[in-house]
Amino acid sequence: MAKRKAGHGFAEAPEDFLVVRPDFSLSKVDPATTPGFVGGKSEGEAALARRDAHLADLQERLFAEGKGGGKRSLLLVLQGMDTSGKGGMVSHVVSAVDVQGVQHAAFRAPTEEEKRHDFLWRIEKQLPGPGMLGCFDRSHYEDVLVPRVHGEIDADELERRYSAIQDFEFRLNSTGTRIVKVMLHLSKDEQKRRLAARLDDPTKYWKYSPGDVGERHHWDAYMEAYEVAILRTSAAYAPWYVVPADNKWYARIVVQELLVAALERLDPQWPAASFDIEEEKRRLAET
Amino acid sequence: MAKRKAGHGFAEAPEDFLVVRPDFSLSKVDPATTPGFVGGKSEGEAALARRDAHLADLQERLFAEGKGGGKRSLLLVLQGMDTSGKGGMVSHVVSAVDVQGVQHAAFRAPTEEEKRHDFLWRIEKQLPGPGMLGCFDRSHYEDVLVPRVHGEIDADELERRYSAIQDFEFRLNSTGTRIVKVMLHLSKDEQKRRLAARLDDPTKYWKYSPGDVGERHHWDAYMEAYEVAILRTSAAYAPWYVVPADNKWYARIVVQELLVAALERLDPQWPAASFDIEEEKRRLAET
Repeated sequence: MAKRKAGHGFAEAPEDFLVVRPDFSLSKVDPATTPGFVGGKSEGEAALARRDAHLADLQERLFAEGKGGGKRSLLLVLQGMDTSGKGGMVSHVVSAVDVQGVQHAAFRAPTEEEKRHDFLWRIEKQLPGPGMLGCFDRSHYEDVLVPRVHGEIDADELERRYSAIQDFEFRLNSTGTRIVKVMLHLSKDEQKRRLAARLDDPTKYWKYSPGDVGERHHWDAYMEAYEVAILRTSAAYAPWYVVPADNKWYARIVVQELLVAALERLDPQWPAASFDIEEEKRRLAET
Repeated sequence: MAKRKAGHGFAEAPEDFLVVRPDFSLSKVDPATTPGFVGGKSEGEAALARRDAHLADLQERLFAEGKGGGKRSLLLVLQGMDTSGKGGMVSHVVSAVDVQGVQHAAFRAPTEEEKRHDFLWRIEKQLPGPGMLGCFDRSHYEDVLVPRVHGEIDADELERRYSAIQDFEFRLNSTGTRIVKVMLHLSKDEQKRRLAARLDDPTKYWKYSPGDVGERHHWDAYMEAYEVAILRTSAAYAPWYVVPADNKWYARIVVQELLVAALERLDPQWPAASFDIEEEKRRLAET
């Protein structure tokens, strides 16, 4: 895969240096850093705003291509610990795209009905249609993270799920869905600050759940589960990007850039006319 | 219902003078006019941009209320002839809202499976959940318009459908869904210009369908069908607004204002904490 030209505030294209490779180790990624970006928060926020229209234009082309019979789509998978900024990513990056072209799905703890099916059952139903940008806030990866951390799954079933995810994502890619998987990598200290901020702001109480604090006791187990899941499911057809996320502005421009890069590589085209243009002009003139 | 204060460019609140009353006649609405707005296109576009954040804030509150156990939602129903600006309304007005809080559905000609069910079956499945802004691009109203115009429905079934719509919308309102129904009222001449523009622009071919020209021969029948449907289904619990739509900028600020007004009347509230705040601060500090 040819390297993309850097630019737009980055000294190097984020997809090149944040993509997970076989020697990946989560502990080597410092959540507080902002690798590759030339500038700080204000430059980052300005860069984000400047890039909105380009992302929206590319997605509109993909949407049009889908309406014209194209089968391709893009799927953004957002994973990360509580408060890592998944929701904010949707509000501040994905929301720049026309809502008609977005299929958003947030996956909570599975319902009783969902539990009676294989873990991919509920995922399949939310896959983006042709021309759409699918956006998963949590995903099938929860099913190799949460039960592993809580000892609710045996080794065989865990292995089966890693393999099933590989097959599933290979199939998606083969049928036209480009997958971009992002782990928003937050530090435990920054999570503490963000949870505390929610407890200090009555307009944020609704985002706080006492269960979030309980999960902090399993932090190291989660990091281990993430690392294994990421290594087991990284592939050229479904790459993982681990994005330092203590700085929200940084994580946002990175994910925006990953979406732009994926769309530019798809290079969606306006569909040709499926009708005789001159004939239609004549018909229209007669009405 | 108390009159809302006017403002934001309007001499009077659009919901007061555009709402359909029992003496409504579609022929009295001139699609080329911009009633009530003080200013022209540039003032209108500026007003739209200024109001985006307020609409987004109100919707975020409704979303939060829904997460906190609230049952209320808002449903925008967009109807209008081809090229009347339904899609643009979604791109330019609804897209200002966080995509996480929007459930968008575009209803095309029913599939074979949908036809085997009652016409409301596919609608029910797309209704907004608690806290959501539902946005219908076409709707159940197509089923009292298209078959009527094409003589594919008898009088009894048509009557049954009007009644069924009344009951359906009454039920939605009773269970917390505020409904705002909008007809984007376009002139036949302006439609001709917009269709011609699509035929002149390769980036717009995908929006053009030869069938659209055919429907122009039934224009008067469509207007009659709209008028009857609107009169039969206008109610305080599910009002219709007929919006002059030859000027896109005008239709957009009107619909934006209708959404703002509906949300302000709902007056959604940030949910109270469902936990002991001091206790949670203590628990968090220990991690």
